[in-house]
Amino acid sequence: MVDALRGIKVKDIMTKNVITAKKDEGVIEAFEKMLRYKISSLPVVNDENKVIGIVTTTDIGYNLIKDRYTLETKIEDVMTKEVVTIDKNASILDAIKKMDITGKTEIINQLPVVDDNNKLVGIISDGDIIRAISRFIIRDK
Amino acid sequence: MVDALRGIKVKDIMTKNVITAKKDEGVIEAFEKMLRYKISSLPVVNDENKVIGIVTTTDIGYNLIKDRYTLETKIEDVMTKEVVTIDKNASILDAIKKMDITGKTEIINQLPVVDDNNKLVGIISDGDIIRAISRFIIRDK
Repeated sequence: MVDALRGIKVKDIMTKNVITAKKDEGVIEAFEKMLRYKISSLPVVNDENKVIGIVTTTDIGYNLIKDRYTLETKIEDVMTKEVVTIDKNASILDAIKKMDITGKTEIINQLPVVDDNNKLVGIISDGDIIRAISRFIIRDK
Repeated sequence: MVDALRGIKVKDIMTKNVITAKKDEGVIEAFEKMLRYKISSLPVVNDENKVIGIVTTTDIGYNLIKDRYTLETKIEDVMTKEVVTIDKNASILDAIKKMDITGKTEIINQLPVVDDNNKLVGIISDGDIIRAISRFIIRDK
């Protein structure tokens, strides 16, 4: 099991075309973007394409419904700055461990994927891993 | 690997307190409920607690942003009626296969869990499975 998971690399199953945000975008604009593209998290990058934060549809939606944002609220005011990322050459075994790194009930559902220069090159979700397990590990067993 | 996955039952890792909707609820009301409770899908049940449909935050959010709903749009107008459910005594191996049953890029992220009488008793997500793999299969390896 563990060997099977170690054999599949993050870069082989990640989504490569990542939709991102800049820190000075409005939160409501970012929320609309996430709904439009059906994505559940949005890495925030600087001009060098390095990840400086992340926001999720879940968190923004929750705070919107609680009336905690205004039209002036910016991404940088609300983003998570301690972003858990993963190297593109890591295995999905490593990705699973990182998703559960907090030890809480809720895992981290999406990890931005970075290259050797710490630049964003993809994103990997819990769903990507489940799909890989289904297709490359379970197959017809 | 496959044996490890077969050893864990859906009922052991599912969420038991499921938030549900009725078919005559308004879609916007349902969307607000999903944001408030930070849930990504909402099984629709009848008076016998049998699953008759499901809606997701992703699909409702997308259609809202596209202005496809009005204040009069009801859950039953937009819900997916062909719901993929799973038995509470099934293994997470079965759950993984069911999540990938369409063979498309996007897996089904949440499966309503039913008992022998086909009544809703829980819900299991891709994240629940990743957490179980992390805690019961990988552990300190």
